[in-house]
Amino acid sequence: MPFYEISKLNPTEVIPGYEARSIHTGTMTFLYWKVKAGASMPVHSHQHEQVSHVLNGKFELIVENEKTILVPGKVAVIPPHSPHGGTAITECELLDVFLPERDDYKFS
Amino acid sequence: MPFYEISKLNPTEVIPGYEARSIHTGTMTFLYWKVKAGASMPVHSHQHEQVSHVLNGKFELIVENEKTILVPGKVAVIPPHSPHGGTAITECELLDVFLPERDDYKFS
Repeated sequence: MPFYEISKLNPTEVIPGYEARSIHTGTMTFLYWKVKAGASMPVHSHQHEQVSHVLNGKFELIVENEKTILVPGKVAVIPPHSPHGGTAITECELLDVFLPERDDYKFS
Repeated sequence: MPFYEISKLNPTEVIPGYEARSIHTGTMTFLYWKVKAGASMPVHSHQHEQVSHVLNGKFELIVENEKTILVPGKVAVIPPHSPHGGTAITECELLDVFLPERDDYKFS
């Protein structure tokens, strides 16, 4: 069955204010976030390449000390090991694509 | 510069009614489509894994003879070499993620 309904996937609160649902394809991880307004993701890095979209809302994103406001229609391409973090300016829906898969986001 | 504004990327009409803008990360291709209502993408296949989202609108998608209506919040994971195609029921904005990169979508 190649079709998924995101709202029917299991949600996990990864850090306060950050609820994630995930699809793992075997090669990539697709993470669908619901983020509360004001919630912050501390600066961090990982071996995975990451491509970030805001589907709804407004998110302040910092990548390697460069800051931008992500809104729908804007995309961030974050290289492996690149420090990044951010804060939801409004309630947000985000889509992060990771390569390779993120085993730490394989929620039970 | 890790940030892209999709509307500022060069559009290419790939087939009638299918206008694409693309980001190539070196590993993956992100394709942002604007599709006219009623426009069809013939069934085809390729070596790339493909993950499809509808950002706006309603798109009838067929994957290996299984049909679904893609709307925002629904996702299709299309394995390599899997025959797929579809028709825009309304005007649509689509996001297709390909692994590996699609050299044939590197528009000049």
